[in-house]
Amino acid sequence: MSEKNEFVYITIADAIEQQILNNTLRTGDKLPSLRMLCDQYGVSQNTALSAYYRLESKMLIEPRPQSGYYVQYTASRIPRVPELSRPSAIASFGLNELLVSQVYDNLGEGASLALATPANALLPVARLNKALLLATRELNGSGVAYDKVEGNERLRRQIARWALPMRPGLSHQDVITTSGCLNALSYCLMAVTERGDTVAMESPVSFGMLQLAEALGLKVLELPTHPASGVDLNAFEAALENGSAKASLLMSNFSNPLGSCMSDENKKAAVALSCQYNVPLIENDVSADIYFGPTRPRSCKSYDESGIVLWCGSVSKTLAPGYRVGWVAPGRFRENVLRMKLYHHISGTAITQEAIGSFLETGRYERHLKQLRHILNGNMNRYSRAISDYFPEGTRASRPQGGSVLWVELPGEIDTAVLHRKALARNISFAPGRIFTLQNQYQSCMRLNYGLIWSEQTESQLKTLGELACAF
Amino acid sequence: MSEKNEFVYITIADAIEQQILNNTLRTGDKLPSLRMLCDQYGVSQNTALSAYYRLESKMLIEPRPQSGYYVQYTASRIPRVPELSRPSAIASFGLNELLVSQVYDNLGEGASLALATPANALLPVARLNKALLLATRELNGSGVAYDKVEGNERLRRQIARWALPMRPGLSHQDVITTSGCLNALSYCLMAVTERGDTVAMESPVSFGMLQLAEALGLKVLELPTHPASGVDLNAFEAALENGSAKASLLMSNFSNPLGSCMSDENKKAAVALSCQYNVPLIENDVSADIYFGPTRPRSCKSYDESGIVLWCGSVSKTLAPGYRVGWVAPGRFRENVLRMKLYHHISGTAITQEAIGSFLETGRYERHLKQLRHILNGNMNRYSRAISDYFPEGTRASRPQGGSVLWVELPGEIDTAVLHRKALARNISFAPGRIFTLQNQYQSCMRLNYGLIWSEQTESQLKTLGELACAF
Repeated sequence: MSEKNEFVYITIADAIEQQILNNTLRTGDKLPSLRMLCDQYGVSQNTALSAYYRLESKMLIEPRPQSGYYVQYTASRIPRVPELSRPSAIASFGLNELLVSQVYDNLGEGASLALATPANALLPVARLNKALLLATRELNGSGVAYDKVEGNERLRRQIARWALPMRPGLSHQDVITTSGCLNALSYCLMAVTERGDTVAMESPVSFGMLQLAEALGLKVLELPTHPASGVDLNAFEAALENGSAKASLLMSNFSNPLGSCMSDENKKAAVALSCQYNVPLIENDVSADIYFGPTRPRSCKSYDESGIVLWCGSVSKTLAPGYRVGWVAPGRFRENVLRMKLYHHISGTAITQEAIGSFLETGRYERHLKQLRHILNGNMNRYSRAISDYFPEGTRASRPQGGSVLWVELPGEIDTAVLHRKALARNISFAPGRIFTLQNQYQSCMRLNYGLIWSEQTESQLKTLGELACAF
Repeated sequence: MSEKNEFVYITIADAIEQQILNNTLRTGDKLPSLRMLCDQYGVSQNTALSAYYRLESKMLIEPRPQSGYYVQYTASRIPRVPELSRPSAIASFGLNELLVSQVYDNLGEGASLALATPANALLPVARLNKALLLATRELNGSGVAYDKVEGNERLRRQIARWALPMRPGLSHQDVITTSGCLNALSYCLMAVTERGDTVAMESPVSFGMLQLAEALGLKVLELPTHPASGVDLNAFEAALENGSAKASLLMSNFSNPLGSCMSDENKKAAVALSCQYNVPLIENDVSADIYFGPTRPRSCKSYDESGIVLWCGSVSKTLAPGYRVGWVAPGRFRENVLRMKLYHHISGTAITQEAIGSFLETGRYERHLKQLRHILNGNMNRYSRAISDYFPEGTRASRPQGGSVLWVELPGEIDTAVLHRKALARNISFAPGRIFTLQNQYQSCMRLNYGLIWSEQTESQLKTLGELACAF
């Protein structure tokens, strides 16, 4: 299939998907026949079939033998989204490190649901190997000598190029490479905070952020956050206004663990507030390329005129977590961040950066992303349905429009730390809610990873998990 | 030439070298003829010739036409070694960051003398490329997925194997990989100190250590250090005894910038003192494989029964600085160091670690090291002679028995910061002494790098440098 056709069938599928999601088309509605679709869009039967196949794999439509395609999506089978989180501002219980160990020291075969990175089978391993081989030939000295502190230039140019639609004017000189996104966040926090300072974050928040803050002697102010729309702006402003937060750290797009995504208005407002109160905003934008909508959501950085946003990313969620290739565009804090990299590492691993740089230069990355988004979008819908089918009545779940994790809130008094132990005995793991906060909360919640190849085993794991929860 | 012969000619050369260095053979003495050497050792003429060639390239002997080989080494042409450093214990002037920038932001063609890493031409680039290709085939998932926190197992086994002669009982489970040695030191300092603590170090000390300490909010206690025998043990004990130092950081073998090497007795005593006062000893052992003597010097770690030593290393001085492959055997601080790595990086770059691991498995590393040691030993002797020939009367210089840098002390009031500006105008750079201390001292000193391929240009740069100093 040519590039052009590929584009056309997605356009058609996306148009129909929008009509299904906004209820123009409703469950049970019959869709146009393949021939009608061909006439309507002026495309070949193959293209029309591809469009329907795409919608079918997303579980939005179903074929009925001898009859045609019908809308299958059922809003009633989609769990309701949890409400805005209400983290306590007073008592801090600390991170439940023991629970973190219980989950991540015992990852066996059933590990897949507990992680937050795409499974190996989703990554373009062979093409990355080729890129690495190419890098040994094209990189000066094959990357054996020290790289510049700011990092590989080819990669930095590609980052700037990829970021261009959302941040015109960003150049490779604004970009510093890092050893993965966590390393970027670590440099940023070291660059803009002092030991004892408070950092405002979404709540729940990835336990990695809580561990990093603790390692740096920082306090964390957990902000109320909505599973769909992200951090509560009033709480965000209050934290900045009263001077309690010396920096904020937000995952504006497809947050971990909620899967929330801030609206453009909220992003713009968050940047304006950060400017107004002169509080650096560290933006973890590691999952934004895995969007399920028509375009990449904007980042806070795209509204940043004054350099108050430190924009961090990596290829760990999309290409190669093991390469440890990440970056930061630190705005006006460039000198400080660069110094942190120099003082702690001298420079980064040049050869893997060059390989990723060359991978991003061609169309390979976009083609890979299209496929990845499609698979994960389908998985997200399958998880939604499985939660609706197997989990206790009243279970809520976030419905991320990108990324690879979703957030589940079980009804009543179900303690997911206990549930985790029971699940582990059945060789199933997941991430209990309590590890995503320093407060005594989210005990009935869990984070599930859908960054995998869906199989009968996945369905069966989710079913078992639901049954264990029902029997609680 | 077979492996066996290679070994024999080195044995012969080393035996003669020892006799020259300990003055059994003296300048002008005639050496045995090639035929006599063959008879004496029972070797072929080729092997005998190789032995003499080796000594000739080290500038220890010279051939005289129609006559034979004569001892050329002249103790009187070797500069005297500087005296024990006497850092002030009171006033701290801070690091001269401006001077650091002046030196390292302006590295052009004449950079070679200012660095502290081997030139690219000394590194086995083609063989490393092969190892990298092999790693994409042999490493599970080609290293695209996250590695274990502790790092690549193949590399960790090789580190333990290489360390075995000097630390029996060290296993791969004691080793954690890092992103270069500086990163290892950074984890260690984070693991065993708190902001505001004092760390005892040699003086002069690599400015990278001073920058790292500053970034972590640590104070530095500079200890008197001898250019040949390393840190002064009385001062070391005093720092531990009065409780002022919460940790020590020592470069026991071929220190940067002095090139000093602690005796086995002193290493043993330093470990015993660290144990007695319960003060962690962080050992930077990054240059020990580049020894000029018959065997690798022992490390402090080899005397460590209680786990008080955190032993750090990397391949940045011997194989591939740009790969950022280092490690630490943190003794009893393993959990803390591992946590620092997890919190700041999740894990390391798997593919470069695997490549280095496979490189170390074969004899390639040892063969490469033999060649590297030989070249650097010759260079060190050439530098000594050039300093004696061209630098002002009374110039002193350390005479490292390994590593790639030496320390020069100019007589009188010559300010090497000013000399550096003059040299830079002639396209020559070096590292002025003031950047290796937080005190107001070492202004008449400089560090010179001999980790390069000696050429007429090198000779001419040293000559110009000497002339500029003489004209000061």
